Amino acid sequence: MTQKAIVLLSGGLDSATTLAIAGAAGFACHCLSVDYGQRHRAELAAAARVAAAQRAAGHRVLKLDLAQFGGSALTDTAIDVPVAGVQPGIPVTYVPARNTIMLSLALAWAEVLDARDIFVGVNAVDYSGYPDCRPAFVAAFETLANLATKAGVEGRKLCVHAPLIDLSKADIVRRGADLGVDYGLTVSCYQADDDGRACGACDSCRLRREGFAAAGLADPTRYR
Amino acid sequence: MTQKAIVLLSGGLDSATTLAIAGAAGFACHCLSVDYGQRHRAELAAAARVAAAQRAAGHRVLKLDLAQFGGSALTDTAIDVPVAGVQPGIPVTYVPARNTIMLSLALAWAEVLDARDIFVGVNAVDYSGYPDCRPAFVAAFETLANLATKAGVEGRKLCVHAPLIDLSKADIVRRGADLGVDYGLTVSCYQADDDGRACGACDSCRLRREGFAAAGLADPTRYR
Repeated sequence: MTQKAIVLLSGGLDSATTLAIAGAAGFACHCLSVDYGQRHRAELAAAARVAAAQRAAGHRVLKLDLAQFGGSALTDTAIDVPVAGVQPGIPVTYVPARNTIMLSLALAWAEVLDARDIFVGVNAVDYSGYPDCRPAFVAAFETLANLATKAGVEGRKLCVHAPLIDLSKADIVRRGADLGVDYGLTVSCYQADDDGRACGACDSCRLRREGFAAAGLADPTRYR
Repeated sequence: MTQKAIVLLSGGLDSATTLAIAGAAGFACHCLSVDYGQRHRAELAAAARVAAAQRAAGHRVLKLDLAQFGGSALTDTAIDVPVAGVQPGIPVTYVPARNTIMLSLALAWAEVLDARDIFVGVNAVDYSGYPDCRPAFVAAFETLANLATKAGVEGRKLCVHAPLIDLSKADIVRRGADLGVDYGLTVSCYQADDDGRACGACDSCRLRREGFAAAGLADPTRYR
């Protein structure tokens, strides 16, 4: 029987590549997106397109209103998304505990489906400096997952895969292109419009554009 | 300035006691409840009563539909709540990854409020055998929290308090009674009716009733 995996799918470039990697590894991929009150809601439609294009085994969108907490430019429209270029330190687009929450939700679904594998597209090279994208974070979550769950207690080890973690953005797009990912379906921009068109100026747009340039690949992003 | 803490408040006996302990320790307590699709929704009204009675600094109810995943008697009405007494092993009332998810949400709010302390009423003595109630789980979450967050990276250590973890149910109710907790406001039953009246037969009811008896205290639970 095909092994099941949970794949966190935001609808951006990294998670679309991660899904392709999990699929190529032979997993039946159950994709999870979270409607958390993000200003770039267009990424959710992108996630659905990507899941369909890559013939995922399933795709679910869970609603969770993190805007109730605020504290991030991505969930509080009163905080502007920075457009002056990637700066040192943790930027205001950081969403408190977002990856911890998303991995927890993936873990819940993994338990219910009896999946032992969770894929997440975090990356600690060409990234925005978020603490919850680092290898030590991913390792700590895997440790937690095995203590937290019935599966872990019963010796069915859960594995958290972060296949992009050491790759540059150029390596990621090369890898995805090799696997046939259609990046034209994805939305990375932190302030994409409702139609999924990108601003071209936020950190996420900059990192993405530089990735295509460095990989020598055409950038299919629709800018507004 | 009073230190802020996030207190996970289900509305049951354990979390009400935990709130009292955090309050007695001098924290300004921001209580978090999660409307996760639990069949015993009456506990949410109980949580509001308890937060008000204990003069919490705040109380928020976050909606997150874990019933979408199912896999537990608490979120899937097709699975009956066992009433034959506490059995060895992990029971069907176990909600996959619930405490991991709730602690993650508490962590997010802690970051936004710049709180360094999170309180959770898990207990590994008179409990239902859930893996995510054990000391090793709590310790692993604290490690994760400090890797996951801006606060942790910047050296403002986050602490996860589980003050009940080594207490018997009798010790818990004695402690709460000393602190003036009104247990008549709380709802522990896994299948409480809409009015908060308890079945008296599920594991949670049994553990609670035995706790009052062993402590030699009157049981204020309203049974139906």
